Amino acid sequence: MKMNKLLVEKNSGSDIKIKIGNKILGEKEKIVFSGPCAVENYENMKDIAVKLKKIGVHALRGGAFKPRTSPYDFQGLEKQGLEILKSVGKETGMIVSTEIMDTRDVEYALDYIDIIQIGSRNMYNYSLLKEVGRTKAPIILKRGMSASIKEWVYAAEYIMREGNENVILCERGIRTFETYTRNTLDLNAVAYIKEKYRLPVIVDPSHGTGLRELVHSMSLAGIMAGADGLIIESHINPEEAISDSRQTINMESMEKILKNVKILEKII
Amino acid sequence: MKMNKLLVEKNSGSDIKIKIGNKILGEKEKIVFSGPCAVENYENMKDIAVKLKKIGVHALRGGAFKPRTSPYDFQGLEKQGLEILKSVGKETGMIVSTEIMDTRDVEYALDYIDIIQIGSRNMYNYSLLKEVGRTKAPIILKRGMSASIKEWVYAAEYIMREGNENVILCERGIRTFETYTRNTLDLNAVAYIKEKYRLPVIVDPSHGTGLRELVHSMSLAGIMAGADGLIIESHINPEEAISDSRQTINMESMEKILKNVKILEKII
Amino acid sequence: MKMNKLLVEKNSGSDIKIKIGNKILGEKEKIVFSGPCAVENYENMKDIAVKLKKIGVHALRGGAFKPRTSPYDFQGLEKQGLEILKSVGKETGMIVSTEIMDTRDVEYALDYIDIIQIGSRNMYNYSLLKEVGRTKAPIILKRGMSASIKEWVYAAEYIMREGNENVILCERGIRTFETYTRNTLDLNAVAYIKEKYRLPVIVDPSHGTGLRELVHSMSLAGIMAGADGLIIESHINPEEAISDSRQTINMESMEKILKNVKILEKII
Amino acid sequence: MKMNKLLVEKNSGSDIKIKIGNKILGEKEKIVFSGPCAVENYENMKDIAVKLKKIGVHALRGGAFKPRTSPYDFQGLEKQGLEILKSVGKETGMIVSTEIMDTRDVEYALDYIDIIQIGSRNMYNYSLLKEVGRTKAPIILKRGMSASIKEWVYAAEYIMREGNENVILCERGIRTFETYTRNTLDLNAVAYIKEKYRLPVIVDPSHGTGLRELVHSMSLAGIMAGADGLIIESHINPEEAISDSRQTINMESMEKILKNVKILEKII
Repeated sequence: MKMNKLLVEKNSGSDIKIKIGNKILGEKEKIVFSGPCAVENYENMKDIAVKLKKIGVHALRGGAFKPRTSPYDFQGLEKQGLEILKSVGKETGMIVSTEIMDTRDVEYALDYIDIIQIGSRNMYNYSLLKEVGRTKAPIILKRGMSASIKEWVYAAEYIMREGNENVILCERGIRTFETYTRNTLDLNAVAYIKEKYRLPVIVDPSHGTGLRELVHSMSLAGIMAGADGLIIESHINPEEAISDSRQTINMESMEKILKNVKILEKII
Repeated sequence: MKMNKLLVEKNSGSDIKIKIGNKILGEKEKIVFSGPCAVENYENMKDIAVKLKKIGVHALRGGAFKPRTSPYDFQGLEKQGLEILKSVGKETGMIVSTEIMDTRDVEYALDYIDIIQIGSRNMYNYSLLKEVGRTKAPIILKRGMSASIKEWVYAAEYIMREGNENVILCERGIRTFETYTRNTLDLNAVAYIKEKYRLPVIVDPSHGTGLRELVHSMSLAGIMAGADGLIIESHINPEEAISDSRQTINMESMEKILKNVKILEKII
Repeated sequence: MKMNKLLVEKNSGSDIKIKIGNKILGEKEKIVFSGPCAVENYENMKDIAVKLKKIGVHALRGGAFKPRTSPYDFQGLEKQGLEILKSVGKETGMIVSTEIMDTRDVEYALDYIDIIQIGSRNMYNYSLLKEVGRTKAPIILKRGMSASIKEWVYAAEYIMREGNENVILCERGIRTFETYTRNTLDLNAVAYIKEKYRLPVIVDPSHGTGLRELVHSMSLAGIMAGADGLIIESHINPEEAISDSRQTINMESMEKILKNVKILEKII
Repeated sequence: MKMNKLLVEKNSGSDIKIKIGNKILGEKEKIVFSGPCAVENYENMKDIAVKLKKIGVHALRGGAFKPRTSPYDFQGLEKQGLEILKSVGKETGMIVSTEIMDTRDVEYALDYIDIIQIGSRNMYNYSLLKEVGRTKAPIILKRGMSASIKEWVYAAEYIMREGNENVILCERGIRTFETYTRNTLDLNAVAYIKEKYRLPVIVDPSHGTGLRELVHSMSLAGIMAGADGLIIESHINPEEAISDSRQTINMESMEKILKNVKILEKII
């Protein structure tokens, strides 16, 4: 382990702020990313985006390449998904973000999307981290489902070391023995990162709980733990979402969260 | 498993509210318990209690019987600790709470204290749960460090079934692979319990993080996750606390937490 | 933590050997404990004991006091269970072992049984550990389901410090994220204990796997990891066992295990 | 999830046996892979290979691309490492195996090595799994450090579905709360796989324990749990190994393991 200070540590410079469209992540205003788990088709994506923009969501998410446990499950629309995201992003004027899983897709993906997500299952994919480190795009680095905070910030260091300091850490829940919730959202890690490191951190209460009825509470808890933003799975008809339905919330719930986040912003 | 509804489930009755001195736990006002990890001596306990009462803490905690990993470590002042708690409680007019570890101590302990804590390591001590279920005192039931929510609420059911419905669930962090924090505070569990069960739930951000610099953030996060109260280790000189020093906060920090909890209460 | 050597450490004396009937646990011959999860009634217990003795099992186990997650589940025959164990033990000339959960039961229990088990859920019940430490009986100390090796051997130290060095450590699986097996049998811990500590260690492949089809393999793996013995749940009709049926094996399987353990003994 | 049978399940065909040089993995004879954690230089690799071949090791391992937590730690000799492995493999007539981390390296790597390892941190790298599935080489698929058995066999399914059935599952320990050992070797998983699936499974007692003094016991325990082989880190001078020194064993210890594995083979 390098004994000198890491780029990710507080004493290596001022806290990093990242431009997300016309907003800045890492400042007083909390930035909210939202969208369906997977890009299903153009119409849904467009409808969802229009509604989300209207209620104040800052950036759109949607999976084009889906990392599924089983090779027989829907793998995502892939390139077509990127095309849909690009169109919808343009038409609504929203920043779009999606997960990229393969080093060979990094370069051309940036012709379609603005922000690259490194999924939880790829946090240790060091080849991929180095590859996105050579771009200039903001990178949402999801914590590995059983990654220690140490491994997580070192993963960020892999990216930053290549020249890209626009790393957004994302706490999305860790794997534990508990079975009532899909993962255990580790807000300690959010508070710890705000104390010790320079990077902004957002919270994903969707994967973090796996239950839509807990998303509101845990979004607000995440903000109070120190999160700079949230990334939440939403859909016009959650019950019909092609994946992650159980944790996806509807537009009304999204609107309530945004409203309450604004209230918390004022008092923080 | 019993197929009928459990006493602890929401459809078994209205949400349970518990009298803590002249306050009610389970209503809008968040109840705060605080005090040192261990009762060290009369003077410290008295000074701490006086200060805590002054800043608005509702009930005093302090360990008389300490469950230590090693038999060679300070086991607590035991009976003398109970005596100190009783005196200090009387002199300051504060409700006092302490952990009881042995079935044989339950009955006489209530001559000294008002609230019995079942520690994390004793959540599965069914003999002890049945014993405290036969009293009328409020019982703080700390979640086992690796107990599932299911096991935890069934442990509460052991107590309630004996006739004592005054069970206060306490989330104090679970054991995970993470080593930067002492435990992983599982606020999902707090939100889940508020959704599905009748019992009030409080959060212990002290054991839950193990780091005093995270106690403030995680206290507020806990409140937003839905907690009815907090239980926090505090001391006049945390550095000198005989145990759990690293996670113990000082009076100034306690005051700040209480102030911010009040602010959150208003907006909730 | 005490800086001097612990009683449980190798440099505090020679390896501890414990008399189990006319056998010695801790020597070349592996000692096998077996019996049903719960003492169900006299006839079953007697039949099982007779068969087990015949195939070479050294000591009988059976639960009289069952630590159940739910208070509505069968709690065991309790005192009546002790009476059955005593009778059957006498009639078959077998050593009997059962779990005791309450400090108040320790003394009289020894009028009925020879060996006291401290269950996984009570490994941190320090009052109980001290109490059994004041007896002379062999104590099977099951590892807490999420107890570190350190906490486990310190729990043994609690017992030894009171004067009773007859502590048998029992690895019975730890709680992890894996759901296909009930627990994760941690044989590393068995090998580690044989390297560093003085106490004998046995393996429970029944709770350790939760699946009867894995009990044979894991028994033999446990022996090769260094275990001094095994403790296995068996029944004449496993499908009809009142608890833990899924992991209970029949007499034929027990016989096969004993036979293969003997073979391994020769080559070790 | 696909409801039909998976290629990896027993009812999809007979158990899969894989050619490793002139040996068959999956039959009575246990196959042993060994070598240093990292390819350090040509001389060491050559010396180690010569000695390992002499004592009966079947295939050589050595890391050319090292997945390090920190980007500042030795990343491996990379392409030069592959060249060394190829030379040494040829000169000693040994099968060589190394980890490949990037989809772009898969094709050319097979000009240098015989077997590709997918490391624990890349078990969820579905792009990489599909890529190696399109080759004909044997693939050692290490279990993710917190991957469930289900996710693990589905990862194997990703590879097999592309046409490559030569998948060797490797249990290398899972991440748990225990800190005395580096990982917790989950031999239950080995026994479970032999019961339910068609693929051969080998055990890595080096990463699985992290302590060289436990490697012998856990190797033999792994064989009794049902493993078809072992993969062990060894070095002429473990203390001087550039990485993983603490778990690396010397040639004398390797010889002892091979000898005892042969003995176990006879009695199984």
